[in-house]
Amino acid sequence: MKGVILRIHPEAMLVDVTHEIDAFDIVAGALVVKGLSRYYPAGTIHVAVVDPGVGGERRGIVLRRDGQTYVGPDNGLFTYILDRGPGMEAREIANADFMLLDPHPTFHGRDIFAPVAAFLSSGSEFESVGPRVADPVTLKIPHPQSSEDGIAGEIIYIDRFGNLTSNIGAEQIRRAVRSVSIGDVRIHGISRFFSEVEEARPLALINIFGLLEIAVNRGNAAQALGLAKGARIRVVWDE
Amino acid sequence: MKGVILRIHPEAMLVDVTHEIDAFDIVAGALVVKGLSRYYPAGTIHVAVVDPGVGGERRGIVLRRDGQTYVGPDNGLFTYILDRGPGMEAREIANADFMLLDPHPTFHGRDIFAPVAAFLSSGSEFESVGPRVADPVTLKIPHPQSSEDGIAGEIIYIDRFGNLTSNIGAEQIRRAVRSVSIGDVRIHGISRFFSEVEEARPLALINIFGLLEIAVNRGNAAQALGLAKGARIRVVWDE
Amino acid sequence: MKGVILRIHPEAMLVDVTHEIDAFDIVAGALVVKGLSRYYPAGTIHVAVVDPGVGGERRGIVLRRDGQTYVGPDNGLFTYILDRGPGMEAREIANADFMLLDPHPTFHGRDIFAPVAAFLSSGSEFESVGPRVADPVTLKIPHPQSSEDGIAGEIIYIDRFGNLTSNIGAEQIRRAVRSVSIGDVRIHGISRFFSEVEEARPLALINIFGLLEIAVNRGNAAQALGLAKGARIRVVWDE
Repeated sequence: MKGVILRIHPEAMLVDVTHEIDAFDIVAGALVVKGLSRYYPAGTIHVAVVDPGVGGERRGIVLRRDGQTYVGPDNGLFTYILDRGPGMEAREIANADFMLLDPHPTFHGRDIFAPVAAFLSSGSEFESVGPRVADPVTLKIPHPQSSEDGIAGEIIYIDRFGNLTSNIGAEQIRRAVRSVSIGDVRIHGISRFFSEVEEARPLALINIFGLLEIAVNRGNAAQALGLAKGARIRVVWDE
Repeated sequence: MKGVILRIHPEAMLVDVTHEIDAFDIVAGALVVKGLSRYYPAGTIHVAVVDPGVGGERRGIVLRRDGQTYVGPDNGLFTYILDRGPGMEAREIANADFMLLDPHPTFHGRDIFAPVAAFLSSGSEFESVGPRVADPVTLKIPHPQSSEDGIAGEIIYIDRFGNLTSNIGAEQIRRAVRSVSIGDVRIHGISRFFSEVEEARPLALINIFGLLEIAVNRGNAAQALGLAKGARIRVVWDE
Repeated sequence: MKGVILRIHPEAMLVDVTHEIDAFDIVAGALVVKGLSRYYPAGTIHVAVVDPGVGGERRGIVLRRDGQTYVGPDNGLFTYILDRGPGMEAREIANADFMLLDPHPTFHGRDIFAPVAAFLSSGSEFESVGPRVADPVTLKIPHPQSSEDGIAGEIIYIDRFGNLTSNIGAEQIRRAVRSVSIGDVRIHGISRFFSEVEEARPLALINIFGLLEIAVNRGNAAQALGLAKGARIRVVWDE
């Protein structure tokens, strides 16, 4: 992909964000796009490829929002960009002038997404990529459920350190928190950083994706608590 | 290596291709060089270091072909560049002006290959690197055997997802394929992409190295099929 | 971190050194800083973040020595830069103008160290970062013990290939070596490269960090010798 980009746009500045997403983990990819893209300069083109359905019916897509552009498969990878409300434009990748000749049905990253990004970065028009898309795909990530006394959600992602990311966003925690319960553990309040609790003790904090996370200070929460994706998590307000 | 290059040529554009080759797996390195180098712009200098024999008798080498340059150990890492027929030039790295002072016998990547690449990228002459090499080392990768009704080869590389790369090249599959047999499995025809078959089902396809690969849709073929390097693979023509 | 740097200093040249340090392994980070920084050009700003105590009492720090700058947590990560004797200047990161607005207590890499590095790289004054630091933190890495007939140390780091790094520096081996003993093994002399010994045989050599290392040619020394961090190592002079 990098070679293809540099052949089309030799002055492009390439930045590796991550190559550590599991092969088919679209949710993890979506969280990285959510958490990181806003820190990049206006004009950045984000190419993201987590693409288990490559070669099948899924579309390729280009999104534009807030001065940034996103290129990749239309499989939910950009869910969190799409859920930010109006102001988003989307195009299906259809113009063969933007692709390598005879793109391989398996290597869309190299043969389609990389060249599209390179052409856009070197001045090609967003509108010329292909027709407008009204209904980009979004992941069916379960919504947390609010009640009188708190909010209930679940674990949607576990990173390589065993930290557990829930579907509860920072913006949904509008009141002081008495406790966070998960598995057999009840955690008191929300920490601001890991070393606020003793080593090997669990804590809850807002993580780099802007979501409530359960971690263990200097430990692996998934292993220590015996939890997996889908584990239920419950926040109780402090009165 | 990056620091050394930037000290010699501060304007060099550095591109990471991969750091995930197993420590001594020259075949894997050779496949990456084969599969990726042609996508890079003319003038690219490829530095590749998979070097179990470092410090011993093996030469350092610089190759030039089709406007691109390759720098690394002369241990077979460039086998697939060499087997493309005439038009290749090779020099042994012998000129100490191209190396760090007193190169460490173990860190040729840092002390020899990186500075050679940096000097070449900043305008030094290919010819001044050292004497011509007539016989660069190539890997003894077994050739697939053609017969009346098909072609027989073997698995030469397994990637971290468990996909099995054979020694049968796309260019050797000149007829329609009835079946591909490996281990206890017979696969019907060649797929163009993973999701052409159902989840957990095996398939055969041409991979990113231009070689016939056995994979399992959303699975790990090496584990699912219980196969290792050297496993025999057989393609049968359709009539 | 990369996005933050590029927003502040769009012309910055970013170089990835490593993302493979274990989560809390300050010693490994310190060794990488020791081994690699001197190969980078004058003017390089090294950002290093291995930071188990983030959010707690530990300071953020900027060091300057020999024309290079180091940014990160003041937790011992720069121990080997500090132990090079006089000529080092240190400042505590205190000036909020150098940080993102409202820095997150857990993500100092992104919100503090990256912007500090970006501002320094774009011309901000070292002195304006914050007050002078007289006593930067250093790791209590045990010193090897010299005796009449040799020197005794211990293993302080094991890399992902199983190579064992000791605390004995190249500069402390001023005499010819008869043997190096570790665990149940006695190794004769110091090798210059791996393939000097037969496959699967142990050897001692000076590694990329400038320290005495025990390795196994084409093997994993930690596994083969059954050794862990803290294992005692003993060098005996030849006469």
